[in-house]
Amino acid sequence: MREKLAELKRLLGEVSDLNAAAAVLYWDQVTQMPPQGASARGRQSATLSRLSHQLLTSPQVGRLLDELAPYGETLPHDCDEASLLRVARRDWDRATKVPSSFIAELSAHQSETYEVWSRAKEAADFPRVAEHLKRTVELSRRLAGFFPGFDHIVDPLIEEHDPGMTVATLRPLFAELRMGLAPLVERIAACDPADEACLHLGYPRAEQAAFCTFLQKRIGYDFSRGRREISPHPFTISFGVNDVRLTVRIREDDLGEALFAAIHETGHALYEMGVSPDLDGGLLAGGVSSGMHESQSRLWENIVGRSRPFWAFFYPRLQGAFPGQLDDVALETFYRAINAVRPSLIRTEADELTYNLHVMIRFDLECQLLEGSLSVLDLPDAWNARYEQDLGVTPPSDREGVLQDVHWFGGIVGGAFQGYTLGNVMAAQIHGAALAAHPNIEHDMEHGRCDTLLGWLGEHIYRHGRKFQPEELIRRATGAPLSVRPYMRYLATKYGELYNVGDLAVPGPSS
Amino acid sequence: MREKLAELKRLLGEVSDLNAAAAVLYWDQVTQMPPQGASARGRQSATLSRLSHQLLTSPQVGRLLDELAPYGETLPHDCDEASLLRVARRDWDRATKVPSSFIAELSAHQSETYEVWSRAKEAADFPRVAEHLKRTVELSRRLAGFFPGFDHIVDPLIEEHDPGMTVATLRPLFAELRMGLAPLVERIAACDPADEACLHLGYPRAEQAAFCTFLQKRIGYDFSRGRREISPHPFTISFGVNDVRLTVRIREDDLGEALFAAIHETGHALYEMGVSPDLDGGLLAGGVSSGMHESQSRLWENIVGRSRPFWAFFYPRLQGAFPGQLDDVALETFYRAINAVRPSLIRTEADELTYNLHVMIRFDLECQLLEGSLSVLDLPDAWNARYEQDLGVTPPSDREGVLQDVHWFGGIVGGAFQGYTLGNVMAAQIHGAALAAHPNIEHDMEHGRCDTLLGWLGEHIYRHGRKFQPEELIRRATGAPLSVRPYMRYLATKYGELYNVGDLAVPGPSS
Repeated sequence: MREKLAELKRLLGEVSDLNAAAAVLYWDQVTQMPPQGASARGRQSATLSRLSHQLLTSPQVGRLLDELAPYGETLPHDCDEASLLRVARRDWDRATKVPSSFIAELSAHQSETYEVWSRAKEAADFPRVAEHLKRTVELSRRLAGFFPGFDHIVDPLIEEHDPGMTVATLRPLFAELRMGLAPLVERIAACDPADEACLHLGYPRAEQAAFCTFLQKRIGYDFSRGRREISPHPFTISFGVNDVRLTVRIREDDLGEALFAAIHETGHALYEMGVSPDLDGGLLAGGVSSGMHESQSRLWENIVGRSRPFWAFFYPRLQGAFPGQLDDVALETFYRAINAVRPSLIRTEADELTYNLHVMIRFDLECQLLEGSLSVLDLPDAWNARYEQDLGVTPPSDREGVLQDVHWFGGIVGGAFQGYTLGNVMAAQIHGAALAAHPNIEHDMEHGRCDTLLGWLGEHIYRHGRKFQPEELIRRATGAPLSVRPYMRYLATKYGELYNVGDLAVPGPSS
Repeated sequence: MREKLAELKRLLGEVSDLNAAAAVLYWDQVTQMPPQGASARGRQSATLSRLSHQLLTSPQVGRLLDELAPYGETLPHDCDEASLLRVARRDWDRATKVPSSFIAELSAHQSETYEVWSRAKEAADFPRVAEHLKRTVELSRRLAGFFPGFDHIVDPLIEEHDPGMTVATLRPLFAELRMGLAPLVERIAACDPADEACLHLGYPRAEQAAFCTFLQKRIGYDFSRGRREISPHPFTISFGVNDVRLTVRIREDDLGEALFAAIHETGHALYEMGVSPDLDGGLLAGGVSSGMHESQSRLWENIVGRSRPFWAFFYPRLQGAFPGQLDDVALETFYRAINAVRPSLIRTEADELTYNLHVMIRFDLECQLLEGSLSVLDLPDAWNARYEQDLGVTPPSDREGVLQDVHWFGGIVGGAFQGYTLGNVMAAQIHGAALAAHPNIEHDMEHGRCDTLLGWLGEHIYRHGRKFQPEELIRRATGAPLSVRPYMRYLATKYGELYNVGDLAVPGPSS
């Protein structure tokens, strides 16, 4: 059995190496590749993906999994080997269900759609990409169909990103969240808007980059195990626990852009860097779900990175970096500016509070598209109606509306959005558990020390990699099932105080 | 047959994609990877190499080659398909002869030796790495042994880099070259040394980089199909005909460093970029041999890049870029500085003329090591004696002696050096043929136009990729077999004039 397990690990290690190589090719494509390199790169990436899929779904892996299953049952649930056998079985089952020919067909359609969408977005011309999107909806339904036995057609697509979650579990969770958010957003909308002028005073790029480096290091990002570059859409990527890189975007006219991208991506990176070295290079390395990954980026970006204790330490240093701009700006003014709430059109630029409304609109619409209760041609109207209803704003064109996000146009429809809000919900619950265990976390933060929190997260979340299902990991880390309440309490307390709308009905502690 | 050929191309295309991916991983490792990423990267690169080797040597490819062989015979020799079948057969035969277990053993030994050598070189302590080098010699002999039927044990290792060449063909060629070089070097050594001060006046990096970009563009390097970065050891790497990148090294105290690295690597890059797009992504893309590749880098670096016509155009622009340093330096002074000849210790810093002596020393020593007529422990003494004898200089320590080059310590002993001098020899013969076809090349050069020469090289060398054996390619391009004479004539004429030692016995035209 030890030999078979070693053989399985070797084969899965090759799959991981191919995936890591594909990730390096993607990183290079975004940060270094010359324009004309794209077509060869597309071919090379496709070859790596195909070989990785072939290797994972090989009969050899299937046989080893069958033979090792009884042995796996005898091992303690949370040991690395038992976890590997569980996760490998799940990955193998899912990967073998989808025919390679379908993957090739989908992939070709996605590349084409992406190109058409880029031009359609530029021209704010949804009809140009409508036929492609129709086909994407159809392909998304077919993809879901390879996983029979679901309650809702979107469930198998959600399972891909957020294992254990379904439309049936997400709907009540989102409904509860919406019920809490709506009155909060409404009351804040009636308040005087925060003064954000201090973020737009003109900040030279090089100094912003230097301050981001300082921030990242203090938070715990180890540059000997990572690297930061510039890209139009910030992201984090891992080639192993000791090589986790990220990108940010810097705008001279918006200080918040680089600062919070750096903290957000650092959150993702700390998760990847914190996976146990024992799991490095194997199937269990990496984050367990979109939601859990997003919980770590948002925990650092929002709960920590937009908090008073954090800036009590960092703001004087930020002033030191930009004396001309910030010497006369009080910490409180800055704090209010980075937490300004205002309903907006673009998800990626939304504030912490209204961000979830953007996500829920997409989630609802993609459920309807896949159910067949909404047609692609009616999508822009449905989109605009929901923005008017939920946020009180109407896109001037489809560019700021239904065409804004790449997800439906570069991937599939279904499964890719819920993770953003799940992440916010998880983040508050996880942060709350950390605070309960270490009440000194905020005090440490005021002195620029993030290691108490980081240590707790490493111990309870990061090191486990993909060993446990997200729901199980949340329970192990926080002692409670996933709940919206910690997040609502966090939002109500923070924004109640900020906007002096403190008499909100904050839900009581989770039962 | 068309189907089988298509299937063969598909499989070989996957091999090329894996090799290109491995190349991207290497490029990333040198230009971007954080220090701690090395160990995962080593594993990922090894996996790609292993899978590429597995794929190339698969029985499926062997069967297709067998089945397609008769068909290949019916095709015109120089069509793409016939060439592919020839080259694929050769690659398959060579690759299947070496067992994977040996490759793994060699590769592990090489990584270890490289580490030990790095420290040994720093400490100028050859004995520290002697045992490792002994084992490398042994492994190199074993590697050669997988290709029985050779006349000299180094032949199979030379064949890997310079197909068609053997010790028996190289020895007379090198002997002839040495006979021509020795009196030239001797006479120049007796002359007043050239004044090189103008290259060491302090040149800011950014301006050097900008001038290199200008140079590269004028020569014909297309930045939309490439990229230049900085690295300690300049190199060129290709991921496809439309993505060929290079690195240079910039020294503020040595203007020649960046200028000639940029031209040299551009020469390599133009070859890769000039391969016919029809061959892109397949086994025939890329240069045909080390010697032929080096011929292109050295043709551009030395024959063009250190010539009067070239600098007639570029020197006034170089003065414009560095007015403070060069305004009072005459073109002739600069020309003599970049062509200064002085016997030296370090191959990579040697001038055009003595460079070949460095190469021939290594070639002779590795033949002796593999024959068994020289022991590893006696190597440093043999090295120093040869430097004293051939160049009249003695290394103060092994750091400037036997430990200087990575080749023996990161690869194998045998086959990696002859290409440097072959390249010089080929370059002169090829350049001569281009001049004969287009006598206006030098006139164009004086006006900053490199396209006549580049066009000829593209037509006669570059576009063919690996289709023809080097010897065959030389004959096709120049109408004559490989000969030392054009190179000797070029050197004698150029340096005879430069050092006023013009009455040398220049060999007559090749018969």
